[in-house]
Amino acid sequence: MKLTRREFSRLGTMAALSGALPEIEAQTGDAAQSSGRKLGWCIVGLGRISMGHFMPGLPLSKTGRITALVSGHRDKAEKQAAMYNVPSPSIYDYDSYDEIRSNKDIDAVYIALPNSMHAEYTIRAARAGKHVLCEKPMATSISDCRAMINACRRAGVKLMIAYRCQYQPLHLKAIQLIRSGAIGQVQAIESAFGFNIKPGEWRLNRKMAGGGPLMDVGIYALNACRYLTGEEPADIKANSSVIDRDGRFNEVEENDGWTMQFPSGILASCNTTYGGDMQGYFRVHGSQGVIEMDPAFIYEGLHLRARTRDGQIIDEPDEQHDPLQFTAEADSFADCIWNNREPKTDGEEGLRDISLISQIYQAAGLREL
Amino acid sequence: MKLTRREFSRLGTMAALSGALPEIEAQTGDAAQSSGRKLGWCIVGLGRISMGHFMPGLPLSKTGRITALVSGHRDKAEKQAAMYNVPSPSIYDYDSYDEIRSNKDIDAVYIALPNSMHAEYTIRAARAGKHVLCEKPMATSISDCRAMINACRRAGVKLMIAYRCQYQPLHLKAIQLIRSGAIGQVQAIESAFGFNIKPGEWRLNRKMAGGGPLMDVGIYALNACRYLTGEEPADIKANSSVIDRDGRFNEVEENDGWTMQFPSGILASCNTTYGGDMQGYFRVHGSQGVIEMDPAFIYEGLHLRARTRDGQIIDEPDEQHDPLQFTAEADSFADCIWNNREPKTDGEEGLRDISLISQIYQAAGLREL
Repeated sequence: MKLTRREFSRLGTMAALSGALPEIEAQTGDAAQSSGRKLGWCIVGLGRISMGHFMPGLPLSKTGRITALVSGHRDKAEKQAAMYNVPSPSIYDYDSYDEIRSNKDIDAVYIALPNSMHAEYTIRAARAGKHVLCEKPMATSISDCRAMINACRRAGVKLMIAYRCQYQPLHLKAIQLIRSGAIGQVQAIESAFGFNIKPGEWRLNRKMAGGGPLMDVGIYALNACRYLTGEEPADIKANSSVIDRDGRFNEVEENDGWTMQFPSGILASCNTTYGGDMQGYFRVHGSQGVIEMDPAFIYEGLHLRARTRDGQIIDEPDEQHDPLQFTAEADSFADCIWNNREPKTDGEEGLRDISLISQIYQAAGLREL
Repeated sequence: MKLTRREFSRLGTMAALSGALPEIEAQTGDAAQSSGRKLGWCIVGLGRISMGHFMPGLPLSKTGRITALVSGHRDKAEKQAAMYNVPSPSIYDYDSYDEIRSNKDIDAVYIALPNSMHAEYTIRAARAGKHVLCEKPMATSISDCRAMINACRRAGVKLMIAYRCQYQPLHLKAIQLIRSGAIGQVQAIESAFGFNIKPGEWRLNRKMAGGGPLMDVGIYALNACRYLTGEEPADIKANSSVIDRDGRFNEVEENDGWTMQFPSGILASCNTTYGGDMQGYFRVHGSQGVIEMDPAFIYEGLHLRARTRDGQIIDEPDEQHDPLQFTAEADSFADCIWNNREPKTDGEEGLRDISLISQIYQAAGLREL
């Protein structure tokens, strides 16, 4: 891998800032693209989202391929390795994880572990000189988020949080419509996302999950309110409850409802649940129109509807099928790495949501993160 | 008008309680229905809702007819009187209003005045021995609501607040579905209602309106959360804002967002606006299904959709056209009067909303009512 002069100079600056020359081998966009080499991904954690979505998304990508796996279950990992042509020596477990450092076929890791493990496995990846795409929520505490950001900065690796909606065409269109004034001045937003959780999931363990539905799915509504308005909440009010005393909610809350005020005066009122049927959606009310996405946050089948100031009716179903949201996410990260761009959904973006979730929990009388 | 023995005995009890024999001539349901006599309505205030909806609803009613009008505009009143065959001596203005007492053709009044006038004209009607159907919001202060309730109780007249949705078939079906457990345990609700108000309306005058969109249209969302859950909010958090500094919002707020927690733990998050495109709707998330009405709060064209625990998909458009919601409301009030039943949406119901609106304003840092 060769560095351009500009690339080299950037690395020198980062090294000077961080005090240590990063051990990664940076690729320039030109070099990578002309050589046809793909970004090598190491998948950390073989669960539903990685096996069912992110991994199937990579063969559809022009930029990435799976080159390594990390799992505590060797047999499961071997089956997946066979499917994606991952060589046996590139299967790691959580003890041997740090050895990814010496695997030249790994450029980036995709962290799809329980929330409480995001920080440790991001930091260890950074120390191994690998770029990190980490699932949301970024971590289970603000201090963990900061440690992740610092570790990646120090190692000179990119850190991106996997907010796939921010790379999804209909979400981008909704943002563009709002910014272009198509519905006038935004006044208010409703958004919600939740589901009825089965007992026994790690998501119900406070230590592993950090919190209840707000950490897991309510974060989509929260994040959407931020990218739809382009503002950061200035005031947050919230309630939280447990209704079903059936053993599922001994450690995390079942429901959260919150209302946010943005600096411009825009209000957003949201719900999330682990106890009910709550297909994710948002509805943005402008002075001269409305934009709705319903469903908004699932893997396919999204639907954008709008009534604009000039009388236009938009009724646009999602044309992308699962797992293309994940392909787009992976492609965007490759572009950031190759062209030394900061990811749109970087560590600071992930930290902002964790910080706001902490504020919501505090406002609802629960513990802070 | 004759009283049955039972009716007479009831009146006696009321008189004993209130210290004054009511001057109204009560009709029994049997007597009224067998005689074919209709309830005589005096319309107080000739504005959009009375001329455009309530009055056109009465000719479609089997129970009511318009027998008198009260307006400050004689010419407008005469035109309406001609349309509804109201005799000229039964046209009153606000000075001669108390003379309705001696008009035997008036059984009930319909108060469709600016909010701040609801109390005075309800109390004067009660003193004139007339039953009162008063538009929502009931009044602009809690003390006014109490005075209205007391005046009507003392006079032995019925007081109903015009919450038309509580008499609308699709709303009743939504309530029945929830109570029957069709969507399991309710967890969360979103509801919103608002519009982009034109300058110059009395609704923007704080003294006349009592407050902004929450008093006028947000009250539909608030009231819906209460009848859909069958519970009273135990905790309320709120934000309020003015975005458009264009002279409309010098006295009342432009937007309110609030989240309520009910005793069972159900959460409801709502918005209202006077600055945007916000078709009224509600969405109720149960543990095993969802019920949505969208639109929910306008005069016709409502649409109920649901997914129930047994896999049933409900997609039911409103079959009633405007002004039948008003006809149903008037018919229900006639039934209460003739059969001495307390209206479902009585003064206490109106007071509860005003008290909650006061709590929302207080939570948002605005003045209490």
